[in-house]
Amino acid sequence: MTVPKAQPASAATQGFLEQLTRYGDQARKVLLDKMPTGEPQAYLYGPMRDYIETSGKGLRPALLLATCEAFGGKAEDAEIAAAVIELLHNAFLVHDDIEDLSDFRRGRECMHKRLGVPLAINIGDGMQSLALSLLRQNLGPLGPMTGARVVDEFDHLLKESIEGQALELGWIKDNRLDLSPSDYLTMCLKKTCWYSFIHPMRIGALIARPDDVASGALNLDDFNAFGFFLGAAFQIQDDVLNLVGSQGKYGKEIGGDIYEGKRTLMLGRLGAQADRQEQSRLSEFLEKPRTARSEQEVEWVLARMNHYSCIEYAQAAANDLLAAARREFDVVFANTNAAPRAFLGQFMDYLVARQV
Amino acid sequence: MTVPKAQPASAATQGFLEQLTRYGDQARKVLLDKMPTGEPQAYLYGPMRDYIETSGKGLRPALLLATCEAFGGKAEDAEIAAAVIELLHNAFLVHDDIEDLSDFRRGRECMHKRLGVPLAINIGDGMQSLALSLLRQNLGPLGPMTGARVVDEFDHLLKESIEGQALELGWIKDNRLDLSPSDYLTMCLKKTCWYSFIHPMRIGALIARPDDVASGALNLDDFNAFGFFLGAAFQIQDDVLNLVGSQGKYGKEIGGDIYEGKRTLMLGRLGAQADRQEQSRLSEFLEKPRTARSEQEVEWVLARMNHYSCIEYAQAAANDLLAAARREFDVVFANTNAAPRAFLGQFMDYLVARQV
Repeated sequence: MTVPKAQPASAATQGFLEQLTRYGDQARKVLLDKMPTGEPQAYLYGPMRDYIETSGKGLRPALLLATCEAFGGKAEDAEIAAAVIELLHNAFLVHDDIEDLSDFRRGRECMHKRLGVPLAINIGDGMQSLALSLLRQNLGPLGPMTGARVVDEFDHLLKESIEGQALELGWIKDNRLDLSPSDYLTMCLKKTCWYSFIHPMRIGALIARPDDVASGALNLDDFNAFGFFLGAAFQIQDDVLNLVGSQGKYGKEIGGDIYEGKRTLMLGRLGAQADRQEQSRLSEFLEKPRTARSEQEVEWVLARMNHYSCIEYAQAAANDLLAAARREFDVVFANTNAAPRAFLGQFMDYLVARQV
Repeated sequence: MTVPKAQPASAATQGFLEQLTRYGDQARKVLLDKMPTGEPQAYLYGPMRDYIETSGKGLRPALLLATCEAFGGKAEDAEIAAAVIELLHNAFLVHDDIEDLSDFRRGRECMHKRLGVPLAINIGDGMQSLALSLLRQNLGPLGPMTGARVVDEFDHLLKESIEGQALELGWIKDNRLDLSPSDYLTMCLKKTCWYSFIHPMRIGALIARPDDVASGALNLDDFNAFGFFLGAAFQIQDDVLNLVGSQGKYGKEIGGDIYEGKRTLMLGRLGAQADRQEQSRLSEFLEKPRTARSEQEVEWVLARMNHYSCIEYAQAAANDLLAAARREFDVVFANTNAAPRAFLGQFMDYLVARQV
């Protein structure tokens, strides 16, 4: 995947970005309308509202709503589910940033740096609980069968995401350096792909065509491979940006993943390619607590990654995954509505072409 | 409330303790049977299972199951709900111990001390998510109406508990010393009483008599005052034990609440009674990060609490609440089944007579 140079947005791109914003705003509006107005505002609902107001582009709601429209549904029918997925994403971010000892998110200090770890853990819990509560309260129009199926999707989404997070954190804790690309992809599937890609599409299609899903005419598992390929390409690109990006555009600290010891595809590749002396130096570095890791050491890791072409290796893997995603997309979204399908095609390009 | 000396258990007490254990084991067995057997065991389900196996007496499941039986229901019909409430309790404890910087729980190191904060946060998330998933999967026998009402109870339980926790943590963060007994009781209602007392009874009665609840013949709100009085008496007693207990029996560190700056009734009383010099010394102490608080300072706080009879004050409040609880109990549980009602009467005595 070659990262393109910044270019003026074409008319098509401009239209895509406007539609992306509309979808994201639709979900955000639901969340802000449903946010509890009672106490405690200062310690719970105020920071939650602020976090939603300053949230990202709404990739997950956009994917969900566009899939719903592609399969002939109305975005209004899916906007609660889209809002819930966005709220869960924010809940994960609040806890992830504590777990990863991150400092910055969306161009400002992470919630736990601003409000302290105790309140931030509790606010993340509150987001998770509110998400599921909103979901249940608002499934009425879908009917009990479809409503229950939507909640099943969210159940699975939570299970996979938490299991994936456990793998990532556990590998760091045990200082695992023996992880294969397949281990990485398994973790990536669980941690990222299900909640960010596969389930948004499954839920969008389910809400659009509940009867076809019930009869078996539409099999939601058809989205799984596409969502995995696209999600893994996205996650690898995100990991690459963390190494070679600039903080202003990326919004998080650069090289943070190396400080955190994250088991990325690049780190796995370095572990496999490095000579014995480098391996033991790498292992010693990763054995230290994050706060004891120096900038020089992080630069050494990055230099070794460059020496062994680990970033090119990861980009090649992302390219392969993206090519596989494009093939799957053409099959899974064949014969769906043209405008949302075109949006989703641009969505793929957008995800993997994010600027360094 | 006078804390009684240790005595040999009478036959009645022995019977009560055996029944308490049976109820607790019934809920624990459900949880252990339903615990996922897949991966990741080492980083997620293994520690979760271990935490459940070494969990406390199961006060909440016992209250739920006994109330169900008192109102003519079968404990089997309520055992999933009892298990879910126990799992949520454990989820809260894992996160609370991180938020409070606690070191010990149930006579051993807290989960985050053994496995690290990142895995512990994620395991708590996993418990919360698994709890709600178990609940949904197992409401079938109750029918859709009652099943949905049970989930509504859990929705409210989570909302109140998280709001109460936000208050407690926020007051510590902002170093609030202007809190009244009414502020304390509001926090206590939200943080403790709903999930530990009121909802277990409401859910037990709802499962026993769904038709009476639907028709209005049984009003679940009748449990609210009783649960509040009993829960507040329990929480105050717990806070007192934290100050005057011995670690071996109590299972947590003694005086930990002072190190944590918890806004207990005793601390509020001290803030209100202390002279200006003491107030400013207290405020300075509470302004420091926990790790900077010395044993001498904690002892000074405790000595000032003794000087102003803050512990006696709290015990008197707990006694008043307990007397109110007893009066409510006689009304709310009038004409219910004798054996579970007798158990619940002993349950009240047991809660507030816990040994120092």
